[in-house]
Amino acid sequence: MNPCDTQSVSDPFVSNTTHAPYAPGALDGLTFALKDNMDVAGEIPGYGSPGWKETRATEAVAHAICMEQLLGAGAIYKGKTISDELAYSLLGVNAFYGTPVNPKAPDRIPGGSSSGSASAVAGGRVDFALGTDTGGSVRVPASNCGLWGYRPSHGLISLSGVLPLAPSYDTVGVMARNGEVLDKVIRVLLADDGHTATPRPSLCFVEDIFHITDAEFLSALTPIRNQLSEICPSRTATMADITAPHVDWRWLFENLGYLLSIEIWNSFGAWVTHEKPTLSPGVESALHAYAKGSDRKDIQRRLTLRQTFQRQLNDFLNDGNILCFPTTVAPAPRLSEITPAFYEGEYIPRAMGVNAISGMSSAPQITMPVAEAGGIPVGLSFVAGYGQDRALMALCNDLYTRCAGH
Amino acid sequence: MNPCDTQSVSDPFVSNTTHAPYAPGALDGLTFALKDNMDVAGEIPGYGSPGWKETRATEAVAHAICMEQLLGAGAIYKGKTISDELAYSLLGVNAFYGTPVNPKAPDRIPGGSSSGSASAVAGGRVDFALGTDTGGSVRVPASNCGLWGYRPSHGLISLSGVLPLAPSYDTVGVMARNGEVLDKVIRVLLADDGHTATPRPSLCFVEDIFHITDAEFLSALTPIRNQLSEICPSRTATMADITAPHVDWRWLFENLGYLLSIEIWNSFGAWVTHEKPTLSPGVESALHAYAKGSDRKDIQRRLTLRQTFQRQLNDFLNDGNILCFPTTVAPAPRLSEITPAFYEGEYIPRAMGVNAISGMSSAPQITMPVAEAGGIPVGLSFVAGYGQDRALMALCNDLYTRCAGH
Repeated sequence: MNPCDTQSVSDPFVSNTTHAPYAPGALDGLTFALKDNMDVAGEIPGYGSPGWKETRATEAVAHAICMEQLLGAGAIYKGKTISDELAYSLLGVNAFYGTPVNPKAPDRIPGGSSSGSASAVAGGRVDFALGTDTGGSVRVPASNCGLWGYRPSHGLISLSGVLPLAPSYDTVGVMARNGEVLDKVIRVLLADDGHTATPRPSLCFVEDIFHITDAEFLSALTPIRNQLSEICPSRTATMADITAPHVDWRWLFENLGYLLSIEIWNSFGAWVTHEKPTLSPGVESALHAYAKGSDRKDIQRRLTLRQTFQRQLNDFLNDGNILCFPTTVAPAPRLSEITPAFYEGEYIPRAMGVNAISGMSSAPQITMPVAEAGGIPVGLSFVAGYGQDRALMALCNDLYTRCAGH
Repeated sequence: MNPCDTQSVSDPFVSNTTHAPYAPGALDGLTFALKDNMDVAGEIPGYGSPGWKETRATEAVAHAICMEQLLGAGAIYKGKTISDELAYSLLGVNAFYGTPVNPKAPDRIPGGSSSGSASAVAGGRVDFALGTDTGGSVRVPASNCGLWGYRPSHGLISLSGVLPLAPSYDTVGVMARNGEVLDKVIRVLLADDGHTATPRPSLCFVEDIFHITDAEFLSALTPIRNQLSEICPSRTATMADITAPHVDWRWLFENLGYLLSIEIWNSFGAWVTHEKPTLSPGVESALHAYAKGSDRKDIQRRLTLRQTFQRQLNDFLNDGNILCFPTTVAPAPRLSEITPAFYEGEYIPRAMGVNAISGMSSAPQITMPVAEAGGIPVGLSFVAGYGQDRALMALCNDLYTRCAGH
């Protein structure tokens, strides 16, 4: 077993059982896939992990609530897609099931952990797919594969029938090729049939995230940023300006990383300790060295840091501000770059740190595919205040339409 | 096995292992207990169910996050308390472990499912206890046992290391004998060290809930209600006035009951189907007849009803209104009343319906022990807007202090 085995697989599905919709509805004619950590009646949720399947998984007797909602609204279920092992990575590399191809950049990783869902949508196999996003697992693969991606306000979409990773941060998210489909799916999952006026907010470009973005991505984003500045009131600020002087991407990475690892050990600790399941060396090491090794006596201090950050950010967002920053600050790495040394580098901390803004605040985030850099998709993200999911979606569709070239 | 075996037990604990605090803090000197559905390292979470313990439970390797927070703030852990079987009841009757005594009314049920936690606090065995509240499982036993009880805004207190029942509605709540201790514990669990001004809201007495309240409870509450009206701006309205014409306690009971049963089947369906665990006849029937039998094609329609209710109620609460109504609308039934016929009666639907206001809206609720009726505790509840937990606590302490006789 080589944890850096990045063998690309062209089929992102682990199961091709299909289900017809219950009734016509807002999603008539649209096809979708689920990530392999969600219950579908009659199937064993695999969680991207042979160890899980061998020791813990039993055949589901009911669909996850999110699946029921989609079938109830007319969508057609086309199967389950590869997840990173235990959904515990942002790369989309699975040593057991292979790395789903990134259709937009076949020599690069798709991103994860909702890797197969991103691959299936970007490859045109389905119209949209659900994934889970705990620390970036929908937004990162959406950005890498040139898709729209949505992480909801925490708690607004049911997690019932979805395997837990870190419950305080777990969300069910969506990927689609365009904003119209994404909007339809979000309305169904939020079960919200009210009207939402397109807001007239102020964009805030998060300067310190643009600052750590690779030059090629930055060049690709500059024209879009300039257009956005013309069509929308905008300003720039750093995360420190918005919240507190000590806050930057590294602080966000370190604190959300700690908080996730603590909850992940609550989710998996007893299992890996007592049942000694089959795990890849990478996940085994992450669980034992990192999750188990975190100092649990520090929980209260870290939760207080998080709570303060959340209050400060929400005060800013509830004033009508929308954050805007690159979803990932570098192109998806090449498959050949995923060596043991890669795991020690800055790619993962930077990707996690940027994606920790919404994880640390429970706020909703949408990434849009706005550009390409040397043929590689570039995603731009927008974050709104807690519960403003529908308004954020309306804004993103409005901005996308009004930017020239789309 | 008799599902109506209400044998009272004087010891509410299932485990007496203790843990010292990690460090001094805001909870110095205070002792607490946990409900038997929360992880304590080295112990098997029993979930009030021999079937669970036999087939699913393994020794926890880490404490639940809420437990870590309390130890980190100076509190002393004194043990685990009886839960209703799978936390699936509001009565506090457990056919396997017995019914923890209600120290304030020993011939009556304590209420559940956090029955042992309520019994331990009311009996002076600990200063406070944690329970879980999905449909009323902290508020009902707190009211029955003459305690303060708190259900948080959904998602604000970590559920990591707590066994899921219905994830979209599960919360970790607190019971204490006075509001000062409850306030201290809430601050720790919310990890919120900011200041909160005591708000000057408008009380809204929920007239249709007072209307279905038993006469003896109503008589006991009238002086308090009059006092509250004098010290606070107040009005009366029905749930229909506040939200929509079709909303009353029965609508709330039927819709939250449905939504809980759907998620409970996702939590337990595969287990009870494949492993055929030991269950009491009552829970077996509830799972198979009710949870399994619910029409899953109706999920989307019901979630939309819930979302609309939540928006309407939050619009009202965010205008500075606080709901006020009896926590339970009848005295805790006598142990001898718990016969098969009792389960067909109106007590459970009314108790669930009244407690569904916060479950259906994710809003926080606090019940205070404000009176007695023939020696039986009477609880009065207050509900604030989502996220206003600290302000609600401050208001309750303020009102309690200002009401004569306290």
